Amino acid sequence: MPRTIGVLGGGQLARMLCEAAGPLGIPVAVLDQPGCPAMQCNPSALNVFGSFKDAARIRELARRVDVLTVETEHVNVDVLEEIATVGVDVPTLAGEKKKTKKIVPVHPSWRTLRLIQNKFDQKEHFFKHGIPIAPQMALSEGAGGDALEESMQMAASNFGFPFMVKAKRDSYDGRGNFKVAGQADFARAAEALGARALYAEQWVPFVAELSVMVIRTEDDDGKLTGVYSYPVVETVHEDSICSLVFMPPRTTSGGGGAVTPETCAAARRLAEKTASSLWGRGVFAVEMFVQHDGTLTVNEVAPRPHNSGHLTIESTPYMSQFKAQLYSVLDMIPPRRENEGNFLVPRVKQAVMVNIIGGAHASSHLPLVELAGSDVFLGTSVDAYLHMYGKEARPNRKIGHVTVTSATESQETLPLAAAAATLIDTAAAIRRDRLAADTSSSSSPSLVSPPPLVTVTMGSDSDMPVLKAGLDVLARFGVPFEVRITSAHRTPLLMMRLGQEAAARGVRVMIAAAGGAAHLPGMLASETPLPVIGVPVKASQLDGVDSLLSIVQMPRGIPTATVGINNSTNAALLAIRILGSYDPLYLSKMETYMRDMATEVEGKAAELERIGYADYLGTRLGK
Amino acid sequence: MPRTIGVLGGGQLARMLCEAAGPLGIPVAVLDQPGCPAMQCNPSALNVFGSFKDAARIRELARRVDVLTVETEHVNVDVLEEIATVGVDVPTLAGEKKKTKKIVPVHPSWRTLRLIQNKFDQKEHFFKHGIPIAPQMALSEGAGGDALEESMQMAASNFGFPFMVKAKRDSYDGRGNFKVAGQADFARAAEALGARALYAEQWVPFVAELSVMVIRTEDDDGKLTGVYSYPVVETVHEDSICSLVFMPPRTTSGGGGAVTPETCAAARRLAEKTASSLWGRGVFAVEMFVQHDGTLTVNEVAPRPHNSGHLTIESTPYMSQFKAQLYSVLDMIPPRRENEGNFLVPRVKQAVMVNIIGGAHASSHLPLVELAGSDVFLGTSVDAYLHMYGKEARPNRKIGHVTVTSATESQETLPLAAAAATLIDTAAAIRRDRLAADTSSSSSPSLVSPPPLVTVTMGSDSDMPVLKAGLDVLARFGVPFEVRITSAHRTPLLMMRLGQEAAARGVRVMIAAAGGAAHLPGMLASETPLPVIGVPVKASQLDGVDSLLSIVQMPRGIPTATVGINNSTNAALLAIRILGSYDPLYLSKMETYMRDMATEVEGKAAELERIGYADYLGTRLGK
Repeated sequence: MPRTIGVLGGGQLARMLCEAAGPLGIPVAVLDQPGCPAMQCNPSALNVFGSFKDAARIRELARRVDVLTVETEHVNVDVLEEIATVGVDVPTLAGEKKKTKKIVPVHPSWRTLRLIQNKFDQKEHFFKHGIPIAPQMALSEGAGGDALEESMQMAASNFGFPFMVKAKRDSYDGRGNFKVAGQADFARAAEALGARALYAEQWVPFVAELSVMVIRTEDDDGKLTGVYSYPVVETVHEDSICSLVFMPPRTTSGGGGAVTPETCAAARRLAEKTASSLWGRGVFAVEMFVQHDGTLTVNEVAPRPHNSGHLTIESTPYMSQFKAQLYSVLDMIPPRRENEGNFLVPRVKQAVMVNIIGGAHASSHLPLVELAGSDVFLGTSVDAYLHMYGKEARPNRKIGHVTVTSATESQETLPLAAAAATLIDTAAAIRRDRLAADTSSSSSPSLVSPPPLVTVTMGSDSDMPVLKAGLDVLARFGVPFEVRITSAHRTPLLMMRLGQEAAARGVRVMIAAAGGAAHLPGMLASETPLPVIGVPVKASQLDGVDSLLSIVQMPRGIPTATVGINNSTNAALLAIRILGSYDPLYLSKMETYMRDMATEVEGKAAELERIGYADYLGTRLGK
Repeated sequence: MPRTIGVLGGGQLARMLCEAAGPLGIPVAVLDQPGCPAMQCNPSALNVFGSFKDAARIRELARRVDVLTVETEHVNVDVLEEIATVGVDVPTLAGEKKKTKKIVPVHPSWRTLRLIQNKFDQKEHFFKHGIPIAPQMALSEGAGGDALEESMQMAASNFGFPFMVKAKRDSYDGRGNFKVAGQADFARAAEALGARALYAEQWVPFVAELSVMVIRTEDDDGKLTGVYSYPVVETVHEDSICSLVFMPPRTTSGGGGAVTPETCAAARRLAEKTASSLWGRGVFAVEMFVQHDGTLTVNEVAPRPHNSGHLTIESTPYMSQFKAQLYSVLDMIPPRRENEGNFLVPRVKQAVMVNIIGGAHASSHLPLVELAGSDVFLGTSVDAYLHMYGKEARPNRKIGHVTVTSATESQETLPLAAAAATLIDTAAAIRRDRLAADTSSSSSPSLVSPPPLVTVTMGSDSDMPVLKAGLDVLARFGVPFEVRITSAHRTPLLMMRLGQEAAARGVRVMIAAAGGAAHLPGMLASETPLPVIGVPVKASQLDGVDSLLSIVQMPRGIPTATVGINNSTNAALLAIRILGSYDPLYLSKMETYMRDMATEVEGKAAELERIGYADYLGTRLGK
């Protein structure tokens, strides 16, 4: 029985985790918003919709899985600690009486996640474990800007200029960092970052940034059983976002002059030592700076699959960083034995990864996608691999990547980086375009109108005024729908065909309105296996009671979902709830609608309290 | 705007096609039954549920996509011809008036599919194109077995014994074939195959079976623009099912003594010639026999990705047979230029594929899965890749495969086949087990009870007798459900929590029953965004009209789906219809239920006609 892995977060890292898990038969449940990249290829009934910072949703995920992992360190660690130590309530069928607790292991450990969330503490920890870091000092958290600037002055005298001011928490992709070049920058840094806990860090004059992915394994008692480092890569950041990754690092001019094979070997040892100092199983990205003389300094650790490890999908295809995450979390990687080498030998000679980053326009990145998917490399010893994430293109957003590799047997002297130059140039052009525009994406309209999810039909066009309110609701919720006229009595065959064909046409719900001897909803229900919602229309006699009873009192076997007389609004809302029972997009829209409705009533209640009922009647209700 | 590919069939071939398409950003829509392997990783809103032989469903798929392809040749070719030549009706929004036709290309061509469906015609076609086949003759299709045996006698004098008798159509995995060793077999062959159109084929004394995958491209006018063959593989069949594939073919003892490099080169040329003689774009498997002297004979062609091409996922990772299918169907493979070589160079030295075939028991295959997923190859130059198809294990069913490869730089002399020996041995053990048992699978029960999809709640346990019929319906349809008691008036907080938590717990629909001032369904609806079905329970007064109106006449904004008084059966059926609007499993169960209901009424009508109304009243209704 394969164990199920729960993942907090459903972005591209979780998506590629799911892509790796599918062929291995490993079930994965994702916690994230509807339509996220991971759920597009992992439509598991165990997925949980919501925020990966929401305690209730995390607990629900824990109930459904055997082990938890993350695709981001910016999660609710307190809840993860609780789940891994105290456990999560498991409801019994009776439900409310006896509660049992289920402990769900969390990998990497919540301990690691908590430490990593605070970059200052993280590096203090490494320093204590003899891992080289850039000297750092906490800055004053006093209320006034003066105390902060004073402590910056102290940092300047300790470290000299320039130095970095960084936020301890919630800093990523360069956000939360400020380079202080001189005293004039103190106020600007305070202005930019002041409201947060800060620290100063000595500037490292690096010639290249390196990253080493490490697989860390431990037994269920938390005892370290192995660390395995992947080959060293060089990362290139532009606009504080990773844009390129080179394996091996470039050793000639252009950034990495000091990255000798000896430096690479030292970097792997350092990365393994760094990962060893942490807790839990999984893959860890150890990011470091290398200086001109080969000196290495650990910058930070990402306790999860990482952009710098994407090329492992092709370079160590038998054990990509995603497969490694699955295997290590499930404890399927064997303990490292004495005198046993690292098994992570690449199957390609070189690899270069180019991120596909959203440009100024929704189509800016397409030339890069087309180039990656084209035949330019066919018949050469260089292979190109496109990875799209199923994300909408927005400026500065990572929406895919391309990895190019060169075969191990290739005799060509042309470096892969040169072969990949067109890709790199195209990515650079997209970036220039983006920087020039510096605007938010103008999303291009979809060219295909989606097939209708809801069919609205009526017995006669005289029912249309009653249906209008419901049609407006469907339009407001963005539901693709169609409107028909099919009378049960005047066009019975047309009505039957509509019912018979609906499901195959992709329709999910039918709404039918009729008055008097109101047969349409029930007759439709007899022709389709889909849910049919009946709207009783008030006809000229009997106040609509005839319509209501004709619709609601269907014989056993053929149900209709009946709403109030003339209440097409509720019919539309019910249809949207039915869509929402499976489609998270409509579920969240319904939640928003209900919240707005509550807020509106609360507003009215407050107003009534403020002005009194007599004025309210006059000003609000005109009575 | 990427074009959407529609695939007839959603088995493992379509699944691996989807696995390839996802990272490439190529949208795929699948036509097959709910829960099929492909839909498990491709939850596209464009998928169509139904049989890939059903004309209406194929047309619906055509409406949604830009180009059609197949994962099996056993499809409805007439409809594909119609769609590719005459086109398919595209409904306009008004729907019934003006019809427009949309032509959707089909690749490979319907011409190829029609030819391939008839194995005799297929080989006649090859013969005409100068492609070597085993001599064959059609057998008499006369009504009596005598004519058939007479023509077998003629075949015997033409071909000698043994010879093969084969069905012209619908024969695959060895079904529809009979080896005739002597005259005594005539009657047995007639008995086994007699009702079908048959042909006789000279026995080919082969030493190995080879297969060559070919990519075939042509322009939109049907002009051939390129054929590219993959490296030759040797296939091994056991029980008429492909079980092992070797790349390159084994050249030593054990089956393939005559497969020299020259024979491989000839096989590739022959395969390219064979594919050239057909029509349309896509990948084609050309299966052939090789005799002791290296003579090649084409046996049959599969016009689609094929079991013998699975190892291309790892051996030519930049262009697996699945990526090649996507690219060729979309015409993204460039025309072959003069003097240009074949670009399909493998990136591994050797590869062996072992099918995972269901054994005697549901767990028989697990040792093979575990071995493939284990660490036995880590640290060697041999890599193992597991591919599970998301299929239930049944005897003789292909449910996954393992490919092992050896790196190109490997200096080891140990052949990969020897390294893979444990895999092959394990597969053989499963087969022996299956043959020994020769029984249908005893499926093991699931160990995890699924979370409830439907919550049924009532205001008081006195409502239970009314709900019982509905609960029975849910149980009969196999819907996971839970039953609660939550009174809107006596336990309002409990009721609210039930509503608030339901969606996050994975519940899709709620059913609430109440009588009198029946507030429970409406109050629940105010706490959950899910659809709530209200069952009005007939209380002591007013015949249930009070309950009905309390439930159905909800204010605008908060809908309830109301069913007839005391009609919990319809509430349950409506809940199942709601599940079925997204979950094809329940949609098809509902269709079956409705068909059965119709059949039952038809049976009663026939009985009434037979015995007359007076007898019917007496014998059937006891009146």
